[in-house]
Amino acid sequence: MQTIDLIGSIAGALTTFAFLPQVIQTWRTRSAGDLSIAWLATFSAGVLLWAAYGFVLRSWPIIATNVLTLMLVSSLTVIKVREMETWRTGRRR
Amino acid sequence: MQTIDLIGSIAGALTTFAFLPQVIQTWRTRSAGDLSIAWLATFSAGVLLWAAYGFVLRSWPIIATNVLTLMLVSSLTVIKVREMETWRTGRRR
Repeated sequence: MQTIDLIGSIAGALTTFAFLPQVIQTWRTRSAGDLSIAWLATFSAGVLLWAAYGFVLRSWPIIATNVLTLMLVSSLTVIKVREMETWRTGRRR
Repeated sequence: MQTIDLIGSIAGALTTFAFLPQVIQTWRTRSAGDLSIAWLATFSAGVLLWAAYGFVLRSWPIIATNVLTLMLVSSLTVIKVREMETWRTGRRR
C-alpha cells in the first residue's frame, strides 16, 4: 500500500469510527438536546451523497466508510427525533 | 464539470457546511454536554489527516473543505473543553 493510500485509509477510519463513542454516549444518556437537528440532517445528506460518489467510482472503501457513517449518524438522528417529539408533546424529562 | 465531480463537490459542501448550524447552536447555548469529547477528538484527528491527504495529492478542494471543517469542529471542542473544566472545578451551571 502506498503512503498516500495509508493516510487516506487511516483518515477514513478515524472520521467514521469517531462516531462510535458519540453514538454510545447518546444511546446511554438518551439525551440529544445539544445535537443540532440541522447538522444531523445536512451531514446525513452529504454522507449519502459521498456513498453515491463512491458507487459511481466503484470505490468500495468510499462506499463502505460512508454507509457505516450514515448508519451511526442515523442512530443519533433516531434519538434526536424521539426527544423532539417528546418535547413537542409536552412530556419533558 | 463532470457529473461525478459535481456529486463530490455537493457532498463535500454538505458534510462541511453541516457543521455551521451545530456551531451556531453550541455557541448560542454554551451547552455541549451531549457532545462526546471522544467524538470531537477522533473526528478532528481524522479531518486533519484528510487535509494532509489533500496536501499530498495537491487537491485544493480536499484541503479547503477539511481545513474549514476542522475550524468549525475546533470551535465546538473549545466550548466542550471549557464546559468540562467548569464541571471539574465544581462551578456547575
